[in-house]
Amino acid sequence: MIEVGPNSYGKSAIRLVKVDRHLTPHRVRDLTIAIALEGEFAASYREGDNSAVIATDTMKNTAYALAGEHLTGAIEDFGLALGRHFLGEPQVERVRVAIDEHAWRPIGGAPDAFTLDSSETRSTVVVVGREGASVRAGIADLAVMKTTRSAFSGFPRDRFTTLKETEDRIMATKVTATWSYEPTAPVGFDSSFSAIRSTFLEVMADHFSVSVQASIWIIAKAILERHPEVSEVSMTLPNLHHWTVDLSPFGIENDREVYVSTTEPHGLIEATIRRSG
Amino acid sequence: MIEVGPNSYGKSAIRLVKVDRHLTPHRVRDLTIAIALEGEFAASYREGDNSAVIATDTMKNTAYALAGEHLTGAIEDFGLALGRHFLGEPQVERVRVAIDEHAWRPIGGAPDAFTLDSSETRSTVVVVGREGASVRAGIADLAVMKTTRSAFSGFPRDRFTTLKETEDRIMATKVTATWSYEPTAPVGFDSSFSAIRSTFLEVMADHFSVSVQASIWIIAKAILERHPEVSEVSMTLPNLHHWTVDLSPFGIENDREVYVSTTEPHGLIEATIRRSG
Amino acid sequence: MIEVGPNSYGKSAIRLVKVDRHLTPHRVRDLTIAIALEGEFAASYREGDNSAVIATDTMKNTAYALAGEHLTGAIEDFGLALGRHFLGEPQVERVRVAIDEHAWRPIGGAPDAFTLDSSETRSTVVVVGREGASVRAGIADLAVMKTTRSAFSGFPRDRFTTLKETEDRIMATKVTATWSYEPTAPVGFDSSFSAIRSTFLEVMADHFSVSVQASIWIIAKAILERHPEVSEVSMTLPNLHHWTVDLSPFGIENDREVYVSTTEPHGLIEATIRRSG
Amino acid sequence: MIEVGPNSYGKSAIRLVKVDRHLTPHRVRDLTIAIALEGEFAASYREGDNSAVIATDTMKNTAYALAGEHLTGAIEDFGLALGRHFLGEPQVERVRVAIDEHAWRPIGGAPDAFTLDSSETRSTVVVVGREGASVRAGIADLAVMKTTRSAFSGFPRDRFTTLKETEDRIMATKVTATWSYEPTAPVGFDSSFSAIRSTFLEVMADHFSVSVQASIWIIAKAILERHPEVSEVSMTLPNLHHWTVDLSPFGIENDREVYVSTTEPHGLIEATIRRSG
Repeated sequence: MIEVGPNSYGKSAIRLVKVDRHLTPHRVRDLTIAIALEGEFAASYREGDNSAVIATDTMKNTAYALAGEHLTGAIEDFGLALGRHFLGEPQVERVRVAIDEHAWRPIGGAPDAFTLDSSETRSTVVVVGREGASVRAGIADLAVMKTTRSAFSGFPRDRFTTLKETEDRIMATKVTATWSYEPTAPVGFDSSFSAIRSTFLEVMADHFSVSVQASIWIIAKAILERHPEVSEVSMTLPNLHHWTVDLSPFGIENDREVYVSTTEPHGLIEATIRRSG
Repeated sequence: MIEVGPNSYGKSAIRLVKVDRHLTPHRVRDLTIAIALEGEFAASYREGDNSAVIATDTMKNTAYALAGEHLTGAIEDFGLALGRHFLGEPQVERVRVAIDEHAWRPIGGAPDAFTLDSSETRSTVVVVGREGASVRAGIADLAVMKTTRSAFSGFPRDRFTTLKETEDRIMATKVTATWSYEPTAPVGFDSSFSAIRSTFLEVMADHFSVSVQASIWIIAKAILERHPEVSEVSMTLPNLHHWTVDLSPFGIENDREVYVSTTEPHGLIEATIRRSG
Repeated sequence: MIEVGPNSYGKSAIRLVKVDRHLTPHRVRDLTIAIALEGEFAASYREGDNSAVIATDTMKNTAYALAGEHLTGAIEDFGLALGRHFLGEPQVERVRVAIDEHAWRPIGGAPDAFTLDSSETRSTVVVVGREGASVRAGIADLAVMKTTRSAFSGFPRDRFTTLKETEDRIMATKVTATWSYEPTAPVGFDSSFSAIRSTFLEVMADHFSVSVQASIWIIAKAILERHPEVSEVSMTLPNLHHWTVDLSPFGIENDREVYVSTTEPHGLIEATIRRSG
Repeated sequence: MIEVGPNSYGKSAIRLVKVDRHLTPHRVRDLTIAIALEGEFAASYREGDNSAVIATDTMKNTAYALAGEHLTGAIEDFGLALGRHFLGEPQVERVRVAIDEHAWRPIGGAPDAFTLDSSETRSTVVVVGREGASVRAGIADLAVMKTTRSAFSGFPRDRFTTLKETEDRIMATKVTATWSYEPTAPVGFDSSFSAIRSTFLEVMADHFSVSVQASIWIIAKAILERHPEVSEVSMTLPNLHHWTVDLSPFGIENDREVYVSTTEPHGLIEATIRRSG
C-alpha cells in the first residue's frame, strides 16, 4: 500500500513593499514572504480533489490584503496574523509563515529617500496550529570577521592530516542564527530582536575563539543567559577560510598580513544550544 | 542550565574532479561533496576541547585521498566509503555525506573532450551510523514543462480569491526529487538511479495533471510500484507560473500561445509518498 | 558646459514563452529579451521632457504583441522585426535587441512535455539603424573540458613566477562565443548557428591546445574558413583551473587523476579573430 | 586572410584580504582584483608562442606580493602600482586593473572584530599605458528607493501603450555609477570618492524625478559642477518597478501603500554625462 506522508504546500517569494507615509521619514517595509499549509490535504494528492486546496494565488492576495491592517509592527506579528487567518479554514491544521525583512535606511535626514542595508536580513518563522503558535526569529546573511583572537589547535592528527595548528588565524563566517521564544514569555518582538542582535555582536567581538564550535557555545550561552524569553539558539556558521599567502619565495615576509579569501571548500558548523531540563 | 543540543560539523563545497584515463573516452567524475559528523563533540563546544575534533581540513584531504581507490562506481558507494572511514573514529556516531554529481558528456566521438550537462544534477545523501547505513538518491535542478494536459480547478473561493479556474494551463517546475532505498534491498545504485529517472520522466510526460499535488502522487506512486527497492519518494516542486498575456487591448487574440514566464512568487509543493504499514 | 554623451534606454529581462501548438511535439520558445533605444533623447535628460520617450512598458508590450506573428523562426529574425518596429519612430536612430534562447527538448516522444536544456544558451544581438542592420549570434554558458592534449609551457619567468610548466593539464572553460555575419551574405540564421556550433565543438575537441589563446585562434580560424558568412569571431574564455592534488604526503600517487576544481581566481582570455584587409 | 583583432588576457577574481595590525582597530582591506594585459601577444594566438605570455598565475602572485608595500591607501593607487609593474615588460602596451573593495566595519569599539557592509561596493578601473594612465572610480550594488517625488508622464502613446501616467510612483534602482578623473587634476582618491558619493546620495535624495533619465542628468550634473576633478559620469540604472497592488476587489483602498516589488522585467537606463567642448 502507498500513502501520502508529510506534506505541505503554499506560496513562496511573495515580494511585498509597504510604505507608511504618515511617518517622517516614511517607513519602508520590504518583505519576502513564504506561506505553507499543512492539514487535511491527502485527497488533493490521492484523488486530485482540489475542493480543500486554498489556491496559492489566494495566499498571495491575502498577504497583500492584510498588510495594510496587520503589518504595522514586527514581522513576527504579521506572520502570526497571516497564520491565524489561514487557520480559520477547517482543513488547515498548521500554517508556517516565513518572512525575511530587508532594511531600508533613510539617506541623511531625507523624508522619502532610502538606501537598502544589504548587510543582514532579519528573519522569522512563525508556526500557527490548533495547539498554539511558536515563533522563531533570526539573523541571516551577516558576514563577520575576527582578525585575531581566533585559534585552532589541539585537534587529532591522522595520516590525512596536514593542517598546521595555529594560535592566531582569521575567523570569518556568514551568520545564520535563529532562536525560539518561550511560549509563555511576553515578548516585544522588535525590542527582543534588537537586544539579542546586540548581544550576538558584542560577544562575537569580545570573546577569544578556540574554534567555531566554542564560539557558538559562548555566544549562544550569553544570549540564553541575558534573554530569558529565548528558549534555544541555533547557528549555522560556515568557516570561510582565509589562508596566509606564502610570500617567502619572493623574499617577502608575511606575518598575518596578506591572505587569500576563499569560499570553496568551507567548514560548516551547526548546533543548537538550549535550556536543559 | 544550558546544554548543547543537536549539532554537527564538517566540510562543505569540496570540489573534486577525477579523470579515469584507462577508458576511452576518458570518464570524468565531477563532484561537490559535503561531509558532516555527529557524535561526542559537546566538549568542543562547552570546554573548547578540540581533542576529538577531526579537522574539516582533514575531511577534505580524506575525500581526495580516497577518491582514487573508492570513486570507481556510483556516488552512493563513494559516500558509503567516506562515511565508513570516518566512523572508524570512536567519537563519531554518525556521518552524513552529501554528494552532487555534475555530468560531463563526450563531444561526439572524442576520447578526451567533454561538455557539461547542466540540465540536472544527480545527488545522494548517505548517512552511516553505528546501527547501519541509509542511502538517499535524487535528481535536482531539472526544469520540466507540460504545455497542455495540466489544469487547476475546483478549488475553494473566498473573498481574497481572484484566480480563474483553468482546464488548460502550462505547468512548469524545477524538480528536486529524492528517494530512500529499502535497507534490505540489493541496490545497484547506478542502474536504479537510471531506471527511476526514466520512470520519473515518462510519468511526468504522460499523465494529466489536475494539480501539482496530484502530479507528485501519480509520479511517486509509479516509482514505488515499479521500483521495489524504493521505500519513499519526496518531491519539492515549485509551481513556476506562466501567465497568458492579455493581448486583447491590441486587438490580438492569444489562445494559449504567448506567456510571461515568472519565478516570483511561485507555488511550492512538498510531499513524501511512501509505502504504508 | 555639461552635455549628454552616449546614452540608451530600454527594457531588460523580458521573459517570454511562446508555444506553437500546431506542431507535434509542440514547439516551445523561451526567450529573455532586452531592448534598448538610442536617438534623440537628450531632452529627456536635460529638460525632463518625456514627449519622445517611448515607455519601456510599451516596449515590453510590443515584444509580447509581435511574438505571435514574428517569432516563427530564428531569434535573429525576431530581433530584426522588433528592431524595425521601433525604428518606425522618428526619434529612434538605433535599436539594439538582445535575445537569449533557452532550449526545451521533448521528453522521449511526448507531444507536450519538455525538459530544459540548461547546458548552453543561444544568444543574439541585433542592431537596427537608419543605415542598416547588423546581426551577431553566439553561444553562452557552455562548459567545456579537455582532459588531455592541453599544455602550457615556454612562458617567461620572473621573480614572482612559481607556476610549473606542464605538457599535460586539464583545460576547462565556460564558453562565451559570438560572431558577426557579413552584411551582404545570405544567412539562414538557424542553419548557420547550427553549423558554426558544430565547428566550434569539433575543433575544440580535436585540437591540441598549447594555451587558451592558441585554442581561440584555432577554433575561430576554422569558423572563419568554413563559414564564409561570418566576418569575425569573439571569444571570452575563463581558464577554470583544475589543480592536481598532492597526495604524496599520504603515500598515494596521483598521476593526473584527482583534481581540485576551482573558479576563483581564474584566467580570462578575450580576443576577436577576424578577416583582414 | 585572417588576423588577430582586439585581445587581452589576465587573471580575474583574485580575492585578497590584507589586515593592517598597526592600527586600532585593525584595518581590513578586502579586494576582488582583475588584471588584464594588452600588447604584443598576437604570436601567442597565431603561433602558440608563449614566450611573451606572462602567466596569469604570475599576475596573481604579483598582486599578493605587492599588496604589503603598495596597498596602503586607495584602491586606485594600488591599481596604478600594479599597472605600472606589468608595464615594465616590453611586450605589454596597456594594463587594465579593476578592483572592487568590500568594506568591513568595526563592531562597536572592537579593535579586531568586523562586519561586512554589503550595501555597496567601491570600484575602480585603472588603465596604464605607454601614454599615461586613466583612472575611473565608482559605486556598485547600491540599492536606492524614493518613496515619493517621482513621476512618469507625458510619454507618447501608441497602440501597444497601456502604462498609465503617474505623478507619484516609487522609484527604485540598484546603482552602478562610475566616473573618470581629469588626467591633469590632483586627486586624493579616497577623499574624492567620499565627496562624490555624498553628492550622489544627497542629490538622489533631494531632487524631484520626472524620469530615471532626468535623475541621471540632475545627479551627474551636480557631480560635475561640484567636483572639478571629474571629467565624466556614467550611470547604469535599472528601473526596478514597484506596482501598486489592486486591492479594490477585496474592498480595500490602497493609496500608494502596498506594492509588489519586481525585478523582471526592468527598465534599464544608461548614460554618460560629461563636460563638453
